[in-house]
Amino acid sequence: MARAMFEPVFKEMFPFWNEITELDRDYICQHTLALTYRKGANIHNGNECSGVILVRSGSLRLYMMSDEGKDITLYRLHEGDMCMLSASCVLEAITFDVFIDAEEDSECYVVSGPAFAAISERNPSIKIFSLETALGRFSDVMWVMQQILFMSMDKRLAIFLSDEAARTGSDSVQLTHEQIAKYMGSAREVVSRMLKYFANEGLVEVSRKGVKLLDKKRLRDLTL
Amino acid sequence: MARAMFEPVFKEMFPFWNEITELDRDYICQHTLALTYRKGANIHNGNECSGVILVRSGSLRLYMMSDEGKDITLYRLHEGDMCMLSASCVLEAITFDVFIDAEEDSECYVVSGPAFAAISERNPSIKIFSLETALGRFSDVMWVMQQILFMSMDKRLAIFLSDEAARTGSDSVQLTHEQIAKYMGSAREVVSRMLKYFANEGLVEVSRKGVKLLDKKRLRDLTL
Repeated sequence: MARAMFEPVFKEMFPFWNEITELDRDYICQHTLALTYRKGANIHNGNECSGVILVRSGSLRLYMMSDEGKDITLYRLHEGDMCMLSASCVLEAITFDVFIDAEEDSECYVVSGPAFAAISERNPSIKIFSLETALGRFSDVMWVMQQILFMSMDKRLAIFLSDEAARTGSDSVQLTHEQIAKYMGSAREVVSRMLKYFANEGLVEVSRKGVKLLDKKRLRDLTL
Repeated sequence: MARAMFEPVFKEMFPFWNEITELDRDYICQHTLALTYRKGANIHNGNECSGVILVRSGSLRLYMMSDEGKDITLYRLHEGDMCMLSASCVLEAITFDVFIDAEEDSECYVVSGPAFAAISERNPSIKIFSLETALGRFSDVMWVMQQILFMSMDKRLAIFLSDEAARTGSDSVQLTHEQIAKYMGSAREVVSRMLKYFANEGLVEVSRKGVKLLDKKRLRDLTL
């Protein structure tokens, strides 16, 4: 049952799938759950071992958080993406805490962390895959850090709005200033001020419903 | 010759040493250089593959840099430390650029990147070791990011001064404000202002030669 449901996806997502035994494949499938998270739900909290998350639909936000509850988005996961940082028991080298929330209603397949760890201990190819997947995210995080530390705010906001519009296939970004600030690791006041400036320049129109992109070309020029 | 020189160190630093063939051990030793870098020398520049660096004495600083030349220290390497991020040809998942300078005259053993990559392709235990070493640094970098983004400046400066004094076994930190700012990923003005505040509080004494720690206990309290 579980095997029939999960195997087609695992075959595609896990390059090691054909290298491991029938028994191990069964074991992974038996220790996988199909879960649906409601928009806003917290999926992973700090250093617990929630498991390997495969996103089937919706979107998840992965972030780090300060003691005071301030947070910075590290990256988001969409359909077809996989999260390894939520399986801290597989990756002993990871000693920092991340948090994951559902941004929209999201369907996920979640492979139990301890089960995945057990199988990876006896299959170097799984261990290597897990480490490489996690290390790939290191590069994402370095990019975010580069942005936050080095890039001017107008450029960052222009990139965020352009990416978001491209991703949703829409001319509008339906997020509050507070939410945009959260995604960008900035403060609401800073985002509001910059949006006001963009609006004065005729680049966007700001309303209660969100931000409408009026001049995508000039916005894109700002990102260069 | 090379084998006699390097093997005692490799045996200690590389947990896989006894698991690989005689031939591979020879190959690694043959492709290792003992290099001395002068204080201030640039050792690794962006995405080149400089190799696996083992620090024998001195200290290296690993940092990221913006297009405008602004830089942020990610971590430093001291005697007995190893650097994997400088061997980008071993780690395909690493797509960001880091830079490494010698902070003091430093002696290093440097294993050629392509040679190490070749051996790791046929030894999963080396591949796993390399990935785990690199991933461990991900945790260090996340900590730096957490500090820079979330922590108040007084706390960060107190931590930096306390760590630096402990590391050098001295009561003084012999660095300019400019250098301290560089290590902390901050601006000189911000560091100078905070040092002046610390001096007024009787925590430190600031002179041309650097910063003298007068009240280590209260400084340490600030770091909590």
